[in-house]
Order: sequence, then C-alpha cells, then structure tokens
Amino acid sequence: MTVNVGWIGLGLIGKPMARRLVDAGYPVTVWNRTSAKAGDLVSAGARLAANPREAAAASDILFTCVSDPPALEDVLRGPDGALAGLRAGSVLVDCSTVSPVLARQVAVEAASHGAEFLEAPVTGGTWGAEKGELVFLTGGEAATFDRVQPVLAHLGKKLFHLGPHGTGQSVKLGMNLIYALEVQALAEALALVGGAGIAPEKLLDVLASSMGRAPVLDIKAPMMLAGDYTPSFPLRLMHKDLGLALELSNQLGVPLPATAASRETYSAVKGAATEDVDYAAVRRFWPR
Amino acid sequence: MTVNVGWIGLGLIGKPMARRLVDAGYPVTVWNRTSAKAGDLVSAGARLAANPREAAAASDILFTCVSDPPALEDVLRGPDGALAGLRAGSVLVDCSTVSPVLARQVAVEAASHGAEFLEAPVTGGTWGAEKGELVFLTGGEAATFDRVQPVLAHLGKKLFHLGPHGTGQSVKLGMNLIYALEVQALAEALALVGGAGIAPEKLLDVLASSMGRAPVLDIKAPMMLAGDYTPSFPLRLMHKDLGLALELSNQLGVPLPATAASRETYSAVKGAATEDVDYAAVRRFWPR
Amino acid sequence: MTVNVGWIGLGLIGKPMARRLVDAGYPVTVWNRTSAKAGDLVSAGARLAANPREAAAASDILFTCVSDPPALEDVLRGPDGALAGLRAGSVLVDCSTVSPVLARQVAVEAASHGAEFLEAPVTGGTWGAEKGELVFLTGGEAATFDRVQPVLAHLGKKLFHLGPHGTGQSVKLGMNLIYALEVQALAEALALVGGAGIAPEKLLDVLASSMGRAPVLDIKAPMMLAGDYTPSFPLRLMHKDLGLALELSNQLGVPLPATAASRETYSAVKGAATEDVDYAAVRRFWPR
Amino acid sequence: MTVNVGWIGLGLIGKPMARRLVDAGYPVTVWNRTSAKAGDLVSAGARLAANPREAAAASDILFTCVSDPPALEDVLRGPDGALAGLRAGSVLVDCSTVSPVLARQVAVEAASHGAEFLEAPVTGGTWGAEKGELVFLTGGEAATFDRVQPVLAHLGKKLFHLGPHGTGQSVKLGMNLIYALEVQALAEALALVGGAGIAPEKLLDVLASSMGRAPVLDIKAPMMLAGDYTPSFPLRLMHKDLGLALELSNQLGVPLPATAASRETYSAVKGAATEDVDYAAVRRFWPR
Repeated sequence: MTVNVGWIGLGLIGKPMARRLVDAGYPVTVWNRTSAKAGDLVSAGARLAANPREAAAASDILFTCVSDPPALEDVLRGPDGALAGLRAGSVLVDCSTVSPVLARQVAVEAASHGAEFLEAPVTGGTWGAEKGELVFLTGGEAATFDRVQPVLAHLGKKLFHLGPHGTGQSVKLGMNLIYALEVQALAEALALVGGAGIAPEKLLDVLASSMGRAPVLDIKAPMMLAGDYTPSFPLRLMHKDLGLALELSNQLGVPLPATAASRETYSAVKGAATEDVDYAAVRRFWPR
Repeated sequence: MTVNVGWIGLGLIGKPMARRLVDAGYPVTVWNRTSAKAGDLVSAGARLAANPREAAAASDILFTCVSDPPALEDVLRGPDGALAGLRAGSVLVDCSTVSPVLARQVAVEAASHGAEFLEAPVTGGTWGAEKGELVFLTGGEAATFDRVQPVLAHLGKKLFHLGPHGTGQSVKLGMNLIYALEVQALAEALALVGGAGIAPEKLLDVLASSMGRAPVLDIKAPMMLAGDYTPSFPLRLMHKDLGLALELSNQLGVPLPATAASRETYSAVKGAATEDVDYAAVRRFWPR
Repeated sequence: MTVNVGWIGLGLIGKPMARRLVDAGYPVTVWNRTSAKAGDLVSAGARLAANPREAAAASDILFTCVSDPPALEDVLRGPDGALAGLRAGSVLVDCSTVSPVLARQVAVEAASHGAEFLEAPVTGGTWGAEKGELVFLTGGEAATFDRVQPVLAHLGKKLFHLGPHGTGQSVKLGMNLIYALEVQALAEALALVGGAGIAPEKLLDVLASSMGRAPVLDIKAPMMLAGDYTPSFPLRLMHKDLGLALELSNQLGVPLPATAASRETYSAVKGAATEDVDYAAVRRFWPR
Repeated sequence: MTVNVGWIGLGLIGKPMARRLVDAGYPVTVWNRTSAKAGDLVSAGARLAANPREAAAASDILFTCVSDPPALEDVLRGPDGALAGLRAGSVLVDCSTVSPVLARQVAVEAASHGAEFLEAPVTGGTWGAEKGELVFLTGGEAATFDRVQPVLAHLGKKLFHLGPHGTGQSVKLGMNLIYALEVQALAEALALVGGAGIAPEKLLDVLASSMGRAPVLDIKAPMMLAGDYTPSFPLRLMHKDLGLALELSNQLGVPLPATAASRETYSAVKGAATEDVDYAAVRRFWPR
C-alpha cells in the first residue's frame, strides 16, 4: 500500500530530506513559503501544493521542518494551515526544533483532527540530511514511532524514541547546549591564547592530542582560524535553540549559568552580523 | 654520562612520574612535604632529600610537580628552597600548572643561579602518568627543551614546545577551560533533562552518537550518573586553574563570559564539598 | 459626561487601583478570574461582569492588569475575550508588564475594533496602588494618553508618556532589570561578607552611609536579614520580567551579561521555593 | 604631645588626605613613587622622605594609600620598605583596598616590628578626600582604632570599626561589588532601551522618580549620556576590586554569578581602553 508523504519546509535540512524520499519512490507533496525552492524537487517528481492545508490533505504522513516556533505555528494554524487539512488517521511528524510546550500543544491539536503526532527534531546538518545519516530525537507514542520508522529509516542512521511528547525536544535542547558550549569553550580558549600572543594553531595541536577533542571542534576550529563562517548550522538558529533551552530551564527553575552566559555572547555576534553566519562565528565576540 | 634527577612533589601525578624515572634507571633524589609518601620510591632505589635545596643540589635536572602557585613558591624560595641549591648549568623543569607570570618570574630566578628553566605542565592524569603517556605543554628556550627531551620521553607520549616562557602555561590554561566547560555543558544538559523528568541515560545515548561526543565526557558521564566522584582530576585543582585562566584573561582584558560563569559553579560545589571530589562533581551544583 | 470604566484583573496591584476608581465615583465594571476577589469592590458599588467581553462592552475606558503575557492574551482573545466586546471609540489601557511585541500586537488588534490602545505598566507596588502614588510608563499615541490622563491621575503620582507603542514596556523592562540587579548586588554582597564570618548588619550600616544606598535596598535589606519574604513584588513576577527583558535584548542582539546571570539566580530560587515569595528572596540562592 | 604622621602614596585619594593632615598642623613626612607629586605638600610644610623606610622611621602613625596589593607589598617590603623602618609602638594604617588575606599578613608583619596595624580602606572619592568626608571601613584591634580615631576624624565623616583584621577589606569589597553592579545595571538598561530606539533620557527620567534611584547613579548617568569618562573612580581600580571580591568569594566557595559576569564586562572595556577612564565607562561595552 502506497504511503503518501507531505513535506512542508525546504530549507538547508528539509530540502535534502524531502529529496531522499522522492528518490526512494514515495509520492511526495511539498510546500515551501518560497515556492521557487521546490523547483528541482518538482522536476524530480514531487507535486507542489498551493498551501500547507493542501499538502496535509494529500498525505498519510506529513512532515514539517521549519526554522523556529513561530514558523511552525504559521504553517500549522489558520484557514490554510496544515492542521485544517490533516487527514484522520494520518501522522504529523515535526522535524523542527521548538519548545516541548509547543510540541505538546501540537500533539493535542493533531489529535483533535484524528491524527497522531510525532516530534522528531534532528541533528547532523545538511551533510547528514543528504546522506540519510541524521540522528532523530523523537517523542510521542511508541506506536506512532513504529509506524513512521520505515520512512525515517531513509533519512537517519539513528532513530531515538525518547518518550512521550516533549521528550524529544527537551533532549534536543540539552544536546544543542552542549554543542554551543563546546564551541564557546574553544572560542574562549582561542581568545585567551590569542590575547597572550600565541598562534591559535598551537592550542589546536594540543587539543587534537587531548581528551577534550570532539568531532564538532574538529569541524569548527578551522572555520575560526580562517574566519570563514559559511553557515552549516546558522548562528541565528543556535541562538534560538539556546533561547528555547533557557525558556525551558527557567520554567523548570533549573539554573543554567554557563548556557545563559554563552547565549549573551551568541546574541552579541548575532546583533553585529550583517550576513548569515555559522555558529562558529561566536569567535567574533572577541575583536582579535 | 649519568643524568642525576631531582623530584619535588609526590602527589597523584608527580609520584608515578618519579617512579617511571627510577624504573628507567636514573639516580633520583626526591622530596615531598609529607615524607611518608616517598617510602616506596626509596625502596625502589630513590634517595630522600631533607629539603628542596638538598634535592636541587644533587640534580642535573630538577623537577617540581606541585598543586598550585603558592606551593611552588614555597618549595622554590627561602633558605631551604630549591633555588638556593640549584646547580649552575642544571635545568629546572616545573610540571605544575601555575600562572604564566609566575613561570616567567621563576625563569628569571633560575637564570640568576646559572640554571635554565622549562615550564612543562602536563595533561593526562594519574593514568597517563603511570603509563608514560602524558602530554607536555612546555615553554622556554628550544635548547632547554631539547636537553630535557630524552628524560621527558620516559614520561609523555606527546611533547609540545609552544614557545618562550609563559606559553606552556597559557596554552594549558586554555586547554583546561575547554575541559571545564565541556564537563559543565554536560552537567547543565543533564540538569535540564533531569528537571524535565527524563532519564539521564537517554541524553547520554544520543550524545554517544553525536559530534558533541568527547573522550572526557565518556569518562565523566558515568561518574555523574553514579554520583561517584572519586577524584581523578580534583575539582579543587580545576577550580584553581579556572581562577588562573581568569586571572590571565583579566590582565589581558579578554572577557571570558562562560568560563567566568562556570567558575562560580565550581566554586559553589567546592564550598559545599566536605571531601575531595573529581571535577565531574560540578553536577552537584543542581540538587537533582 | 460620565466615563464608564472597566477593570480586568484584581491582583495585588489591580484591586487597589480599581478600588480607587470606585471611590472616586466612576461607574466601574470589574472582572477577575476568581470572582470571589471582587466581593468588596461590588459591595463598594462596582458591577461584576460575567466575562471580559461583557466588561469591555460596558466601558469607555477598559483597564487590564494581569500577571503575564499569557494571562493578557487569555483575557483579551477568544469569544468571551475583551477584544470581542471592545466598543468603537473606547480606550484599552493595559497596566500589565508584557513584551513590547505583544503591546504592539494588542494595539493593532484594538484598532481593528475601532479602539485606541495605551500600554501603561506601573511601578510602586501594592502600597503605591493603594495611595494612588504609582508611576505609569505609558506608550501609545499622545492623544490617547491625554484622553486617559484624568483617570490615571487618580492612580499615579507620575505619568510618563514615553513614545509610541512598545516604549512603555521597553522602559519598564529596563527599570525592572535595574531593580533586580540592585537587589542581586545586595544579596551577593551579603553572601560574601556572611561567608567571611561578618554580621550582615555591618555591611548595611556602611551601605546606609554610602552613595550606593537606594530606597529599594532600604526596603529589601531588612527582609533579607529577617528571612521574611512576604511578597510585596513577587519573585515569580520579577523572574518573568527578567525573562521578558532578555527576550527583548536577544531579539535586538544586545548582550546583557549581568541580567542573564541574575536571571538564573532568580530561577534557582523560584525552582526551590514552595511558597510565593518576594524577589528579595533571591538571597536564598546562598545557603548561608 | 605631638603625633608625627607619615604618608606613603599621593594619588587621587591619598594626596588630598595628606594635605588635610598638613593643614591640621600635624608634622607630616611623605613619600611617593613619583616624588614630583609631593611638591605642593612640601611647600605647605611636609617633609619628603627618601624612601618608605625613612617615612616610617619618622612616624608615630604611618599611613599607606596605594592602588593595589602589589603596590602595597612594594612599599612595605624589602630593605627600603616601610616595615623595615617601622617604630616599635607606632601604628600602621593602610587606606588601600587589598585582599583580607594580605591585610592579615601585614598585621602579622607589623606586629613582628612591635607596631599595631589598622586596615582602613575608604569610600568617597577625591571629592570626599578633599572635604574630609570619607567613610572609613576599618579592621583591627578596637584599641588601635581608638588610638588613631582623632587623626582619622580630620579625614572622614564616618569611621566604622568592623571587627578584626580582614573585616574592613571584606566589607569594602562587598560595598564595591554593589557599586559596580548598580552601575552595570544602569549600563545594561541603557543598552537595552537604546537598542530599542528609545532616548536614554527617558529611562533616566523614570529612574529619578523610582525606588531604584541611587546617588551613585545620579553621578554616573550623566557621564554615560555625555560619553565623558574623566575618572573619578578609575575603571582599572574597580576592575581590580571586583577581582579581589571574586578572589575572596572563590576562596570561601561562595558563588557570585552577577559579580563574575560584570567583571568580564569591565575587563573587556579595560582591554579596549587606550586612556584612563571612570568605571562608568562600562557603558562602552555596548557599541551603541
């Protein structure tokens, strides 16, 4: 039996994901705010919907993959929103990183349309999306997870089912604060040794031999040295995720002192940036 | 020609280092504040000096390996201090982590006794010290480094010569802030997901599959889960090193916001601890 | 010509404000989530509305005074919300502290009902509300401000008109971060001298003679000494306002390092509190 | 009986203090690193010593008033240092702000020369020093305090005796973190409203009517508005005092999150400044 897939959001992550499903032979209906981005997907066989509602109405499994909570609310709600078109018995899978509170709200709204909801934020970047090697951090009913697993298997190498609605997003926010602080740590260490007049390569040589080495630092360190911040994971999104992590922690009354300090640093760089930059650009917080 | 070695400081790192040199056949004269700790080294062939000066007077290469700047000043200065006994033409090698300012002062003081100085802080912990797999971050003249390299080769797998006096300590402080912030990041993420009611193992499973994975986290995460903080690298020393990093950065006028926030967290845990704990115990900052 | 007043929100600040308008002879229609709180106002002559819409429908000037942005959205929106009942030509005055973004949205929504909007957050606490000595920080059209000024004059001693919609809330958030950091500063200083074994009264004696003295500290210091945190301005609201200030600053890309650090401290105290406490309870962050 | 006074340190605070004692008729022997600064004091009747030892040898009460701990150690220790000349039975009064640890050390060193020691850091600035309206925060024996009180009465309007050695400095550091955070709070609030496009005067108008008003802010706010940071209390000294406060708090294990965040801000401004500026220049942390 054919599974009809809908895909809303064709950004740096969403588009290669949708492409893999088209290439895997699924009938895919896509929608994107800027429809021009759908061009090559349509050439490859996808159908273009006029609005999110229409994409939903055509789908057994509807994916959303957008940049932040307001963008998700925009594509879901309103007369042309996806919720209005959601089929009874279908599954809504959201790959965006949003707050656990919003994830739980969407689950309730989907249920009111007779649909199941799985939150499924991802890590792995554009590269992982293209190769089908993303990591999925899902939250929702186990049965829902089982149901979409065959489709997710085309997209990710690791599919974690972490618990009920909200758990996927909460773990994702925890993971992203680790990334943000690791990159911040490298930037602070480079600023320190740079301030002391030492070539940054020396710190990196030592780091490479150390237990502090991390794959993410292997990738971000050369960007900092070259001052080339072509976005792989944009700073504006990392800044947004740190905001979501702090929103959650402050609701819970759990202090996160280093995350809070780091967020202000990302904020300053975001405020001064005139172009879209990778989050490794937090190094710009220091003039030298 | 026999190289006579002196060794001052038989702590968690210093003692296994000295032991390796005894086992390698060097004549080793040792001194430690608590002389009882020298017992098995003496049984293995080391000679016990009555004070640091006597240890220095017997040595072509004198090592110091103590816990902090005041301890280093104590063993070096004063009538029975090592500087008073330092042979002309000898080399003083300090493996402690201290400020670059103090390293540069000691270099001047050693030179006034006709001795060379190499700062040589290490990473790798007790395990690395026992196996001879430490990493040395040295600063001083290249010729001094070359001269002691054959001895250091018994102790470390990587010997970095980073530049003139002060550079070894500066890079060491940069490295340690990376470690401290990585461990802080993990602790904050665990506090966040814990506060959200999610089992910590779930975050760790995801981390293990991610680019944020780091060897130091592989080691510290189980300690946090078990609440077992038997010291490998004591929190009081990491807290001291963060203080040294901030002392340096504040002299330079380089802001380190996340390091500063993290140091307060380590400080709170140190203030509440009634026993010696590993720096992974920063997790205790959060009651749950 | 009689001005009919509506009042939504009878909390620590709102209720004494509404009472002053009743006592001044205005016909007042009130609504509160917990209608029991309206009892004595009704006895004093106020009329109780069945829902916010009904209160709006009866009013030339409708006040809202609730605790946070979701509470404001709740009373304004939906079929029984105040917006649905708003009279064309009336004025909506919101005395809550919310984000400037929300204030601007509400202005647009009110305009779509033919009504004017004035944001009018206040400072001065319950005491100021009772005495009519509040300070109003308003934003909106100057003409709107002029129109409601005669009514506000019964409630406040200082009526600032700060500019267009959003400015009142922005200045309010700036003011509240000053209060929060002043109280945090006192708490940190007391924790420091307390940790050093010095009686807190000694610091307070010196403070009283110094240029650092501030009226808010004269009020909060005795609360900290007595450990009596009966809420005058509840910590949960100050914590919320710090969150709003940081939400705004992060949208703008303006780093606020001390505010961010302080918010985490308030968060920890909120998370541990089992009762409603004044924001002076930030002192509880330190066990001694 | 004539009391011979010595005075070491003729900076922004020390010189007007010494001048008042000369004018009050005391025989005063002065010393300053830059002897040119002593010119007008000598014209007014003071005697110029060749070194600190000589100043001490001539004095019943010897004052020191220098900028930081190393400067104090410099004038006290060594063959020409003040300790070497201290008369048995004399009193050493230090008006510098240093660590409580150093204050306790100096007390021991003075005692070994048969002299008493009173730590006596001051607040009030150059203006207070000229008018004799400083506030003294003293620590030491009550009898020592009583003995020097008649001389201090020429210099200060408030003389606090806070307890044994160390207490004066500890309270001083607590006070200065309050000042630093109040000024930081104002700078953050101005950066926030400025970022939101609001004229800073509007915030200041509101502040002037509020309970957050503080005399120090009345003085620093116009400096921030004008961008004129002619030093009254230099930022480099406030930065040093924040460092001393954090050194103390970290020794005690008392976390000071906002102080730590603020210190990094002052550090960044210090690092970027090319001239001596008042600590109100922390406002420069934000480009606008």
